[in-house]
Amino acid sequence: MKREEVFNFSAGPSVLPQEALERAAAEILNYNGSGMSVMEMSHRSAFFQEIFDATKAKLKAALAVPDTHEILFLQGGASLQFSMVPLNLLEAGTADYAVTGNFANIAMKEAKKYGNIHVAASSQEDNFSYIPRQEQLDLTPGAKYFYYCANNTIYGTAWDYIPQTEAPLVCDMSSEILSRPVDVSKYGLILAGAQKNMAPAGVTVVIMDKALAGHEMPITPLMLSYKTMIDKDSMYNTPPCWCIYMLGLTLDWLEKQGGVAGMEAIKHEKAQMIYDIIDNSKLYKPCARVDSRSDMNITFRTGDADLDAQFAKEGQARGLMNLKGHRSVGGIRASLYNAQPMEGVKALADYMKEFEVKHHV
Amino acid sequence: MKREEVFNFSAGPSVLPQEALERAAAEILNYNGSGMSVMEMSHRSAFFQEIFDATKAKLKAALAVPDTHEILFLQGGASLQFSMVPLNLLEAGTADYAVTGNFANIAMKEAKKYGNIHVAASSQEDNFSYIPRQEQLDLTPGAKYFYYCANNTIYGTAWDYIPQTEAPLVCDMSSEILSRPVDVSKYGLILAGAQKNMAPAGVTVVIMDKALAGHEMPITPLMLSYKTMIDKDSMYNTPPCWCIYMLGLTLDWLEKQGGVAGMEAIKHEKAQMIYDIIDNSKLYKPCARVDSRSDMNITFRTGDADLDAQFAKEGQARGLMNLKGHRSVGGIRASLYNAQPMEGVKALADYMKEFEVKHHV
Repeated sequence: MKREEVFNFSAGPSVLPQEALERAAAEILNYNGSGMSVMEMSHRSAFFQEIFDATKAKLKAALAVPDTHEILFLQGGASLQFSMVPLNLLEAGTADYAVTGNFANIAMKEAKKYGNIHVAASSQEDNFSYIPRQEQLDLTPGAKYFYYCANNTIYGTAWDYIPQTEAPLVCDMSSEILSRPVDVSKYGLILAGAQKNMAPAGVTVVIMDKALAGHEMPITPLMLSYKTMIDKDSMYNTPPCWCIYMLGLTLDWLEKQGGVAGMEAIKHEKAQMIYDIIDNSKLYKPCARVDSRSDMNITFRTGDADLDAQFAKEGQARGLMNLKGHRSVGGIRASLYNAQPMEGVKALADYMKEFEVKHHV
Repeated sequence: MKREEVFNFSAGPSVLPQEALERAAAEILNYNGSGMSVMEMSHRSAFFQEIFDATKAKLKAALAVPDTHEILFLQGGASLQFSMVPLNLLEAGTADYAVTGNFANIAMKEAKKYGNIHVAASSQEDNFSYIPRQEQLDLTPGAKYFYYCANNTIYGTAWDYIPQTEAPLVCDMSSEILSRPVDVSKYGLILAGAQKNMAPAGVTVVIMDKALAGHEMPITPLMLSYKTMIDKDSMYNTPPCWCIYMLGLTLDWLEKQGGVAGMEAIKHEKAQMIYDIIDNSKLYKPCARVDSRSDMNITFRTGDADLDAQFAKEGQARGLMNLKGHRSVGGIRASLYNAQPMEGVKALADYMKEFEVKHHV
């Protein structure tokens, strides 16, 4: 298929801005007169240092990151952060975890390896279909941190409020970072795998309050010390240079779209177009509770696993890719990240209506 | 500068095969009729799974990896392996380390966090200018493993023999993997950051005897368990997809060059061209002892730090990039990895001769 015939609804890695990819294509053999690809550059070279510094500055500007906080470009995805967070922040204390999905659950279990972990809330009993409200959070006095996952990719739920806690907030924003403004000063640590709203898989962004660094356990692997990475400006060793470069290109595109405010202005409109169809449908049933819906990942099902599979398969045949739900839950999932164009959402909407007419008895 | 005017002698990230980059450029917006970039593909999609499987198969073929051994594509560079190796292999035992350079030294110190480590040999007293011989290795009976770094990028030394030990060999081959045939069956575990001979920075190759997996310490972060990664075929979470794809393109190129045997046939010729100039020079002094010389990284100096800097600077002006020695040792370093073309080596040789005529009094 031609690129213009395809819309990619993958939950991650996912669609990147056309403009970012075109620029990468144009520069891939020779970046800015260096005679080299970004993939070939010494990470200590002036050429790459400039890319690195500019990308960091663009991200700092895009999210209005205060000077109290450091931006890190790490490796290993959010999953490595599940270990890095307790190794660095837990010390001999207790941490609270809100378990609102698969990844928050894994993060919680992983943290238990390293100390006292308290489940402050869980929606597991209802298949992670909702986000607990503030009054449902059972907070530990003096907790070292409160951990939550802002957007649950598999279940299609998102927190619509910032939890109020005495403990520093640690938030997995992998699936929603850069989709709306965030008051970074309210967070102790934000982590995000890049492969949804930012860049190709291979770089993990951490934005952390520098005051929280320097308390890692003695068993912490050297690469997993936030302090080391802050001290070395993410270059203790060779960083994932190409992914950082691609993030820079995405941020250039984002700025032209009005930044995170521009994204926020359209993300709800995009999602609502699909939720409206679901809510007015006799075929499609939503998975997430209405008050907990994500604008990034929309989950639904027909109630018939074969029909769900057929929906994904027929969608793919007409260029609507990756509509299958996560393998752990089945159903249908459409991810509408920043780079998903409005025409992609419209194409999905049209397809959903056609499919319902064809298949609803 | 134009690409054809530049030769890149960076120690890593470093030059990639022209052919691999051209193919990446051609496919970057639309891989194989998928309508998507490889950077945008779900790692669970059939499109990417095919790339993954093919790349793994090509690497298995290139190094004749036996079925007893598993190939893993990880993140975090060799530096994360410095922790992962003891966390998974040390148990309650002792491991032997040969300290022949900066990275072996860091690996040894890191391993000490996790148990008993014995320095079986060290060349630190002579500025890491040589590789100890077999009879100099002070081996611990019953050691869990013997660790060494095959090629010391900073110092320009390389092991010209495989150590004979009772313990499984663990070898950092970052700077020489794919430059010659290796009897993988002799190794318990081979690790290599990709950014020298394989791919862009962001993927780390581990080739390990499966029988050694499954003994990780309870404190091992979930992403740092070899067992988990073997069980999940390197996809416990999203792997660095683009880097794996690029590795596949490099391996296609490598095969056309006659594979690792083809590389071995020319690597010594390339290096010797530069060593001959050094040995016949009144200006250049080699850093590594003759019997310990690396074919991958050639280190030398003029004896005058300013003149060394001038050598790198004037080189850069004529398109010979990254000739500065590592910041910890200074001097001059030229890396002649697989993708360094013979004409690049000749251009360096010509430049060295000219520079000597101009500057030797």
